[in-house]
Amino acid sequence: QGCDGDDPAAATDGTVPTIKIFGYLQTQYDYTFNDIHENTLTFKRARFGIRGKVKDDFSYYFMLEASPFIGGVGSTYLMDAFVSYEKYNWAKISVGTFKQPFSLEVNTPCNGLTTINRSIVADQLVAPQRDFGLIVLGGNKYTKFRYAVALMNGRGLNVVDNNSKKDIIGRASYKLFDFMSIGGSFRYGYPNNNDNTRTSYGGEMVLTLNNLKIQGEYIYDEGDYNRAAGGGCGSEPVELGNKRDGGYIMISYDTKWKVQPVFKYEYFDPNIDVKKIGYQEMMTIGANYFVNDKIRFQLNYQAHIETYINIDNDILLAQIQVKF
Amino acid sequence: QGCDGDDPAAATDGTVPTIKIFGYLQTQYDYTFNDIHENTLTFKRARFGIRGKVKDDFSYYFMLEASPFIGGVGSTYLMDAFVSYEKYNWAKISVGTFKQPFSLEVNTPCNGLTTINRSIVADQLVAPQRDFGLIVLGGNKYTKFRYAVALMNGRGLNVVDNNSKKDIIGRASYKLFDFMSIGGSFRYGYPNNNDNTRTSYGGEMVLTLNNLKIQGEYIYDEGDYNRAAGGGCGSEPVELGNKRDGGYIMISYDTKWKVQPVFKYEYFDPNIDVKKIGYQEMMTIGANYFVNDKIRFQLNYQAHIETYINIDNDILLAQIQVKF
Amino acid sequence: QGCDGDDPAAATDGTVPTIKIFGYLQTQYDYTFNDIHENTLTFKRARFGIRGKVKDDFSYYFMLEASPFIGGVGSTYLMDAFVSYEKYNWAKISVGTFKQPFSLEVNTPCNGLTTINRSIVADQLVAPQRDFGLIVLGGNKYTKFRYAVALMNGRGLNVVDNNSKKDIIGRASYKLFDFMSIGGSFRYGYPNNNDNTRTSYGGEMVLTLNNLKIQGEYIYDEGDYNRAAGGGCGSEPVELGNKRDGGYIMISYDTKWKVQPVFKYEYFDPNIDVKKIGYQEMMTIGANYFVNDKIRFQLNYQAHIETYINIDNDILLAQIQVKF
Repeated sequence: QGCDGDDPAAATDGTVPTIKIFGYLQTQYDYTFNDIHENTLTFKRARFGIRGKVKDDFSYYFMLEASPFIGGVGSTYLMDAFVSYEKYNWAKISVGTFKQPFSLEVNTPCNGLTTINRSIVADQLVAPQRDFGLIVLGGNKYTKFRYAVALMNGRGLNVVDNNSKKDIIGRASYKLFDFMSIGGSFRYGYPNNNDNTRTSYGGEMVLTLNNLKIQGEYIYDEGDYNRAAGGGCGSEPVELGNKRDGGYIMISYDTKWKVQPVFKYEYFDPNIDVKKIGYQEMMTIGANYFVNDKIRFQLNYQAHIETYINIDNDILLAQIQVKF
Repeated sequence: QGCDGDDPAAATDGTVPTIKIFGYLQTQYDYTFNDIHENTLTFKRARFGIRGKVKDDFSYYFMLEASPFIGGVGSTYLMDAFVSYEKYNWAKISVGTFKQPFSLEVNTPCNGLTTINRSIVADQLVAPQRDFGLIVLGGNKYTKFRYAVALMNGRGLNVVDNNSKKDIIGRASYKLFDFMSIGGSFRYGYPNNNDNTRTSYGGEMVLTLNNLKIQGEYIYDEGDYNRAAGGGCGSEPVELGNKRDGGYIMISYDTKWKVQPVFKYEYFDPNIDVKKIGYQEMMTIGANYFVNDKIRFQLNYQAHIETYINIDNDILLAQIQVKF
Repeated sequence: QGCDGDDPAAATDGTVPTIKIFGYLQTQYDYTFNDIHENTLTFKRARFGIRGKVKDDFSYYFMLEASPFIGGVGSTYLMDAFVSYEKYNWAKISVGTFKQPFSLEVNTPCNGLTTINRSIVADQLVAPQRDFGLIVLGGNKYTKFRYAVALMNGRGLNVVDNNSKKDIIGRASYKLFDFMSIGGSFRYGYPNNNDNTRTSYGGEMVLTLNNLKIQGEYIYDEGDYNRAAGGGCGSEPVELGNKRDGGYIMISYDTKWKVQPVFKYEYFDPNIDVKKIGYQEMMTIGANYFVNDKIRFQLNYQAHIETYINIDNDILLAQIQVKF
């Protein structure tokens, strides 16, 4: 009487190995340097999923977010779920929910970020970070050139599209030299209705000089936006003006003791035309310690810099991540 | 300190093979032929679960629905979960949550339906489609006769019963000839309280002539109903009169190219005494393409026919289903 | 484009065996002996999870509650999730969410309880039963002495801490003789703010005389409390006075027919200073039948005794538990 039909309960036919269970848990301690010394133990992300192949060229990906602090639903929900057709390396196709192919940092796996948080500009302007869509991807980490183009609802997860037009989002990157990659992103969409559009551009660059890595991005965004879509990864969305931009530069170094110090400078301007309100800069000083490829400790100190009215809001974040 | 006690973390004793992970994802594109050209990428169903045996005659089934568009909770919830005692093929017993044993189409696994949607009458009148209960089942797909009788709360999932009387629901089918099966369903219940009853009947017939399959059902239902229980599979429940009925006939053909064209005619009358309001007919023309037994493409065109006031609400549905 | 990076979909490198899927389902029938004969089929707990090792001394535990009747969110949520460092048997460390180390009964795995419900005092006063924290544990079931000390938010699951001070909770037990263990618990916390504290003590004793087991606990609690944290395991929290206490004694016997009769007497006083209101006693008579270590039937009759105004609220509970 269940949905799985009349099959025998136990699989003994060798089909199980094509199912891979995966996930990771990010347990975090946040301390804010303000008057009331806000501090809490919390989860950042708590994800698990199932993936596998069902045929030579067809695979599936099914992942849930169980952290109560991301997504606004307070309980476990389906985050990334898609079917892929991967016959052609230069035109892999996926349909379902996944991240918008915009920005290097947004498209870095959430368990592989060098700082605990993404940059403010990525969380605020590449929103919704996840959405329903159809994506075509080409290349992989071994190719010099990579690209991705997606048609997406533009409304985010857990809702259907409320307008009849789809958003188009794309990103391409190219390895100019062994030590240098550059890339760009583009988005043209309809956040709320069929009339008001949103246009976004992004540029990115990565330099890898032996153990030193320097990564930078710039994002420019204008037009309508959907406040209900929230910020990326549970961040509080801020009010945006008609034009907004931001960027970051991040420097990290792999030492031989499995420790990776990192420094990040970033800024975000939610309204380019009105400089005085909302403009913020932030410096992050941190270190990652990799016990092995499954366990990572992260420590980040975020120095928030408000240009006009200073607020006591520097934050210390400590995270343990375990992958399975 | 977890609920799993002091056991070692890794199972090395050969017990794992009795656990089977299963599930399926239905990614869908809906286009409505109306003025505003509503269209969206969405999920129909997104389910995964665990099942297995814990002893020769005891098995369990534990399945969650992760699609945000079914069940009204917006996040992942427990759909079918039951323990079964299967010693006697003519009296298998299950306790937990499962589908009501009413109607052939409702009891067809959701990943094995010939059209993307069930018939309107099945979604509107066999509601709640899932419920807490105790069921006794006899026979299987190899026997001529099959039956199922269940005692159920009558209130659906995620709630406890609000009345002290239980509902009784049953279904039986018989293979008259190799090419012909007939069956019937029955329900007598208390949707809202101990006084107002609901009585339902259903009849079904399946003809299989080589590659041609003709399937039809008729459902009649009268008395009280629980609007809060929702329609089947996330469909919007409509207002019902005291007596209502509906039926469908569906013709499909298995071609040798793994393509299965299908035609379905159906009607639904939410209030038999008042013909003019709510009565609807629908024709579905579609085709299924089976890449293999794990991947299926479905395309359905639904021509909605309103008898009195015509509405532009024909719908095109395209679905990719992957099973794992 | 998913979070799991560019890895191939199927794991073929022998890492899968370190993942263990586990869980259990408790299907229950509740009947209340009152005027309206309330009765319902329901779930008590419905949990599943993943656990394993990622390195010799590091393990993880990731468990979700899918029962809609626990936790107040109505859908599946992350219950216990933590990373553990287990190099030193006398100082194992875990960080994440888990049960407060207070009271023997609270720390008995939920699938190993002798009566269907925990004692009222444990559900009402050891609340929130689960919370974010860091815990240090020593000893195991083979050692005479065991202890656990935790620093916790004090606010429960699904929320961040709203005050800057952490709660400290601890429990220790010692096996005085082969047939006798004693133990004690302690909690000092800040349920709602940085000013109002809560102090709790608990004492416990277990006698094991051949097949006879006698277990008793007493809990005393005073000061502030957080009503929003709810009672343990979905129980309705009651209003508490400034001082409150309760206790139970439970006697069970393992017969040779896999049947275990149990008797429990308990009382709970939500306000010691005002004896007339809220004070309750309860006797539970029951039996457990273990088909094997995976399947258990439980039958409990709860005789509720109100000292001042008697209410018809005796309850019969019947449960089937399947573990996987």
